[in-house]
Amino acid sequence: MSVVLCLVFLFFTSFAEATYPPGGFHHISSSLRQHKKASSKSKPKLPFETRYFPQNLDHFSFRPESYKVFQQKYLINSRFWRKGGPIFVYTGNEGDIDWFATNTGFMSDIAPKFQALLVFIEHRFYGESKPFGKKQHKSAETLGYLNSQQALADYAILIRSLKQNLSSEASPVVVFGGSYGGMLAAWFRLKYPHIAIGALASSAPILHFDKIVPLTSFYDAISQDFKDASVNCFKVIKRSWDELDAVSTLKNGLPQLSKKFRTCKGLHSQYSARDWLMSAFVYTAMVNYATAANFMAPLPGYPVEQMCKIVDGFPRGSSNLDRAFAAASLYYNYSGSEKCFELEQPSDDHGLDGWGWQACTEMVMPMSCSNQSMFPAYENDYEAFKEQCKSRYGVEPRPHWITTEFGGKRIETVLKRFGSNIIFSNGMQDPWSRGGVLKNISSSIVALVTKKGAHHADLRAATKDDPDWLKEQRRQEVAIIEKWISEYHRDLKEQE
Amino acid sequence: MSVVLCLVFLFFTSFAEATYPPGGFHHISSSLRQHKKASSKSKPKLPFETRYFPQNLDHFSFRPESYKVFQQKYLINSRFWRKGGPIFVYTGNEGDIDWFATNTGFMSDIAPKFQALLVFIEHRFYGESKPFGKKQHKSAETLGYLNSQQALADYAILIRSLKQNLSSEASPVVVFGGSYGGMLAAWFRLKYPHIAIGALASSAPILHFDKIVPLTSFYDAISQDFKDASVNCFKVIKRSWDELDAVSTLKNGLPQLSKKFRTCKGLHSQYSARDWLMSAFVYTAMVNYATAANFMAPLPGYPVEQMCKIVDGFPRGSSNLDRAFAAASLYYNYSGSEKCFELEQPSDDHGLDGWGWQACTEMVMPMSCSNQSMFPAYENDYEAFKEQCKSRYGVEPRPHWITTEFGGKRIETVLKRFGSNIIFSNGMQDPWSRGGVLKNISSSIVALVTKKGAHHADLRAATKDDPDWLKEQRRQEVAIIEKWISEYHRDLKEQE
Repeated sequence: MSVVLCLVFLFFTSFAEATYPPGGFHHISSSLRQHKKASSKSKPKLPFETRYFPQNLDHFSFRPESYKVFQQKYLINSRFWRKGGPIFVYTGNEGDIDWFATNTGFMSDIAPKFQALLVFIEHRFYGESKPFGKKQHKSAETLGYLNSQQALADYAILIRSLKQNLSSEASPVVVFGGSYGGMLAAWFRLKYPHIAIGALASSAPILHFDKIVPLTSFYDAISQDFKDASVNCFKVIKRSWDELDAVSTLKNGLPQLSKKFRTCKGLHSQYSARDWLMSAFVYTAMVNYATAANFMAPLPGYPVEQMCKIVDGFPRGSSNLDRAFAAASLYYNYSGSEKCFELEQPSDDHGLDGWGWQACTEMVMPMSCSNQSMFPAYENDYEAFKEQCKSRYGVEPRPHWITTEFGGKRIETVLKRFGSNIIFSNGMQDPWSRGGVLKNISSSIVALVTKKGAHHADLRAATKDDPDWLKEQRRQEVAIIEKWISEYHRDLKEQE
Repeated sequence: MSVVLCLVFLFFTSFAEATYPPGGFHHISSSLRQHKKASSKSKPKLPFETRYFPQNLDHFSFRPESYKVFQQKYLINSRFWRKGGPIFVYTGNEGDIDWFATNTGFMSDIAPKFQALLVFIEHRFYGESKPFGKKQHKSAETLGYLNSQQALADYAILIRSLKQNLSSEASPVVVFGGSYGGMLAAWFRLKYPHIAIGALASSAPILHFDKIVPLTSFYDAISQDFKDASVNCFKVIKRSWDELDAVSTLKNGLPQLSKKFRTCKGLHSQYSARDWLMSAFVYTAMVNYATAANFMAPLPGYPVEQMCKIVDGFPRGSSNLDRAFAAASLYYNYSGSEKCFELEQPSDDHGLDGWGWQACTEMVMPMSCSNQSMFPAYENDYEAFKEQCKSRYGVEPRPHWITTEFGGKRIETVLKRFGSNIIFSNGMQDPWSRGGVLKNISSSIVALVTKKGAHHADLRAATKDDPDWLKEQRRQEVAIIEKWISEYHRDLKEQE
């Protein structure tokens, strides 16, 4: 369980990639890719039937190439379904849909109560749903069709066809998603209200665009998590960066650093070490909730607390960098089986992933690190980012597109009198929460916010260790969804 | 005025084109093109400044070609604008934007009251806003980018940029449109509520897709208009088709028909004559409102009444076909200056217009003629239509796309609890009204329906001849728009 648990989070974290200081641009996804490889052997057996749907390549143009068909993978489980009952659809995000199905146990948990059909749809260009197969990542010519609007249209077409084939056109559809999938779920309800009666958007940072929330919010939130666990821990980590710089500028600095970081191969840059550390803190903050407690070392408490216990447990006067390394090792080596760490990735592996493309075109979520955070201060440099994207993919980002297409600015004013039936759930320990909707907008566009809680914790399967706040958040979600469905049936009856 | 008056209606009528019985597929637009040519010389001088906006070719993909920029034309009039005041935007439809500006006097009429900025945006691929210039109609490769979703995104981007340049980001935007432009206005409010606070969608047949309304509704409505004017007139026209067939099957039938129809050149097919007649009745029904009374012959009354007076004025025992021809002549030759009629168009002119393309890809609005109508009975043959589109443009229609993307089925249930601030205005004498929203959906998604009234009559400039029902419809529209704007300002204040 533990490997899977961190994996799903990790997909989303490449969000941060494009905004890292120089040197860190590529690192995160590569170190995580190793985890992925290791765990893909042990792909879980799912209670779903796998199906494929012939999908058009381009829904928003009618050129001959637009009609190219690819097979979109989806998973379906009708075990609990009563015909005519609701259809719960997970709007897949950036990865293999099997992982999202595995890690969204909440939908399976509540399906019997609702007698719901479960459907998990894979996002185009990920997993098996690759329109151009392995060749797809070769150029903007093919990758150009990878974006959120096309993905939403895929979902609309697939759901409509599925309902028709099941002769269940009156079945209410509710969409679910976490992280980028949560953004898609919310946007799907906003753009396709005729297809989904409501959306549960968990940890969906739809306001993390176009400077709606401060650029520093993400790293500030992580810093806050560590400060909450231990002020000393926060300070140690904050100081460790200077020590890292100091070591690396020594004669023989990089070999020393390599030794200190137990790297499998000698380091070429101090930035690899820095990013490796940062990533560990970022991901740990994202998975920072109670039921994840045992995914790390046998220490008790929430993941960030566990890390801080290690940091704080060092004798007085110890090196801050050594402490930070030890904390990070907990994340990378919770099983204790790693003999050495891979901090750098071969360069030919760069930029070939789908999320890297999305982040360089539409999903432009700039970040910076303030002096108050525990991370090295970093000013966002959009021009540099743009040039990086251009050289990597040959196209320019469209930094205002997401807010033009989906809104976000002054969202309270806009959605106060428009739209309905969206739950935005967030746990404030998740750094992505800062880009989420954290206040109720109207009577039916609501925010379920918990003080604790990590990245889409509510979508995970219930466990006996779940804390009360998590149980309560899920209980409210179920109650709201029940209301949507009964309202829908009542409206339907009235119209007849 | 009279020429302009009918012209704007005519753009929209190529809607009917693709659904005509064989032989009629091309005729309508060509006979109208003549009108257009004649009148384009006398293009009116508008109180607008013409501007151009650099627009991306494809908003929904990120291929290198997507970034191609074209100049989108728009008209602007800031004479009445108080900075910070509302911005009224016309979402241009299938034609030169100057014509829509000329024929949407309502917006100019109410601008002083609202101290509003007026903006008319031209639809991509029409007028001067042609991404590929004259070459654009050569193939699906270029035409592929012509569709409603791309047009809506154009409007969103242009409006946002304009507001920024005017430093008026808090100005509320209301969108207006008639006919296809009305569909775009309604859809714009549904898809871009963060950009427009409301929409006046006049004569917008958004339910004329995917069999939501009966396929016969359009021609049935016209038949009803004629029956309401005179039952005899209805019967005469209904009987004329058999006479037309009878003449044309005679030896020397076509020359006889040519003579009877005073054609400039000899007819090649009887269908040309049939379509020519049908078109006259269709368009006359569409412009069937009081202020249009003087666009035809010096007869008094509404246009359909005028036609029927001619039909009814023939001596007892006259040929039904002669009467029908005389009625149609009123439409084609209201000035009395036409020496002969062009019923057929050279074949190389076929299918090169933008609307033909849209009707063959997304705007699939099938129709048929029932036995109860006054038109020749005609069963819709989707397969034949599809083949025609394929041979004409090389691509297949997507007949379910519009309802997938924009909804429409069970619209009352869907929008009862979703969305707000849309006026659907219709005049029931307009045959397109049957595909419109004719009942209030919620307290702010409302239908303003008049028993009389033709195709987007409310959007025209007020005249002293306007009947009371038209004045009242416009008064209600103004009151509702006022409410939207004051609500918007109130909400804005509350959020601050």
